[in-house]
Amino acid sequence: MTDPASSTDVPPIAVALHGGSGTICREMLSAELEQSYRQALAEARDAAWSLLAAGGAALDAVEAGAKVLEDCPLFNAGLGAVFTSDGGHELDAAIMEGRERKAGAVAGVKSVKNPISLARAVLADERYVFLAGPGAEAFAESVAVERVAADWFGTPERFAQLRAAQANDGMVMDHDGKVSTKYGTIGVVALDEHGDVAAATSTGGLTNKKFGRIGDTPLIGAGTYADNRTCAVSCTGYGEEFMRAVVAHDVAARMEYLGETLERATRHVVWQKLPKLRGSGGLIAVDRTGRVSLPFNTDGMYRAWRTSRDKTEGVAIFGDD
Amino acid sequence: MTDPASSTDVPPIAVALHGGSGTICREMLSAELEQSYRQALAEARDAAWSLLAAGGAALDAVEAGAKVLEDCPLFNAGLGAVFTSDGGHELDAAIMEGRERKAGAVAGVKSVKNPISLARAVLADERYVFLAGPGAEAFAESVAVERVAADWFGTPERFAQLRAAQANDGMVMDHDGKVSTKYGTIGVVALDEHGDVAAATSTGGLTNKKFGRIGDTPLIGAGTYADNRTCAVSCTGYGEEFMRAVVAHDVAARMEYLGETLERATRHVVWQKLPKLRGSGGLIAVDRTGRVSLPFNTDGMYRAWRTSRDKTEGVAIFGDD
Repeated sequence: MTDPASSTDVPPIAVALHGGSGTICREMLSAELEQSYRQALAEARDAAWSLLAAGGAALDAVEAGAKVLEDCPLFNAGLGAVFTSDGGHELDAAIMEGRERKAGAVAGVKSVKNPISLARAVLADERYVFLAGPGAEAFAESVAVERVAADWFGTPERFAQLRAAQANDGMVMDHDGKVSTKYGTIGVVALDEHGDVAAATSTGGLTNKKFGRIGDTPLIGAGTYADNRTCAVSCTGYGEEFMRAVVAHDVAARMEYLGETLERATRHVVWQKLPKLRGSGGLIAVDRTGRVSLPFNTDGMYRAWRTSRDKTEGVAIFGDD
Repeated sequence: MTDPASSTDVPPIAVALHGGSGTICREMLSAELEQSYRQALAEARDAAWSLLAAGGAALDAVEAGAKVLEDCPLFNAGLGAVFTSDGGHELDAAIMEGRERKAGAVAGVKSVKNPISLARAVLADERYVFLAGPGAEAFAESVAVERVAADWFGTPERFAQLRAAQANDGMVMDHDGKVSTKYGTIGVVALDEHGDVAAATSTGGLTNKKFGRIGDTPLIGAGTYADNRTCAVSCTGYGEEFMRAVVAHDVAARMEYLGETLERATRHVVWQKLPKLRGSGGLIAVDRTGRVSLPFNTDGMYRAWRTSRDKTEGVAIFGDD
């Protein structure tokens, strides 16, 4: 290996995460709310980082970080998930590790407090990759995940968003500002000291969504992907275009086949390819050398990162911070 | 363009299809049954071909071919779908066109005679890409697709396979020979005279499957993919590995980024990459120049093809025919 990061004795570790992307402007966030977002993003990042710094596995780190974001009502995943058209919640999540490319995903989950942990249980079980609906709930009965009542996920803010969307007869994203659209998803990627990468993504879907719609989040290759040879990726955006473009796998394929760097591959996909499909959103990614990349083609993306390689860390929301 | 196929005045058309792959040996098929399979494969191919030859769209051709295979009880899709663990049927399908990369997919469908046509309706609707479970059924109410009773799909042979699997306490594929495994899926790919490619895949899933398991079939990029710049692909095999390897998109990515031919890209993925994940199965693919490729790493794959470019056509089942 010729990479400078591996010329030292200490292998690099890194984490990056997102809490959704979209039309996120300073004038839309009060100082208090902005501070709450920044604090939650830092807390999730630090939860993942502390595991990595103690020699833990990337797979454990991304699950731990994702759980912090799922448990925070500010983000559209777990507690604080948006409402479907019938006033319920349908949660999707996926997790993947890059060494053997084992993966687990769930869709349409209604009673599991942390969908990312159910996805992790699917991965650990190894019989399947993707479980959906009542079947996923039945699987949850057989593993150790915390269950909650159906009304546990909702918050007054989310219910107001449902009512606004229904008045509008439209299916809108979880932040229903007058001129705003926000793609509510959370995701974490990490590299551990063993050289393994992992990715986790979780979402409450779309406010007022109908017909059991599944987005890109739980689809391996679309919203979530990890391969030690290249990178780990978690996406946030309008899911339909991310599925059609197979975004997460496309980033890995460009690195593997074109020899592109993580930065170049992620920027090309988010800034060049996705706009051609009118796809808006962003992604976070980490490569095996400990670099991270967090590009988005929207006004903002809730995000945080920390790397040992470049000794960088940060929490950011807007396009210019 | 330097391709010889485009140097003539008549643009090329092509179709390829599969009816599943696996341990398919001559000694397991009676002469009569073998003849029935060959006839059904030829009928589906000719249904797609006649549309293409009349100047029709690849998207219409793959839907027409897939419907013939769904309606034939020999194949594990539509009529003749295998039974789930609770004695029902959960059907998955996806369809995609290569010009704008529009896609439609459904999972866990129980009352639609031709799941591929419901996927086509999702594609045409354009609001979503992937609908699952009761929500997909609700969407079916709003479009013109034929509905059937829940017991319509089953056949005595499939029920015997369920009983055998349950006696075995295992989840097995749809052909339960003593030493045999067969991956029951059907798929069609086509190129039309307008230069558009399309892919369609449909399945009844796994005999005795539990927990609302979804395989690669309805996942855009895994079991189904189409992009005019490269190719259209439909997969058949053990779905979990096809999902983890994002097989269909990987073929397209190798052509786009490495400049590989269709033949080289498909063979590399099926013969080199999938076995490393212990993934068994095959795929069919067509490129924009009218070439087809039908590689598999199992003993056999039910398949048929016809191309105007090389004036080839065939129907085959075993590895050596």
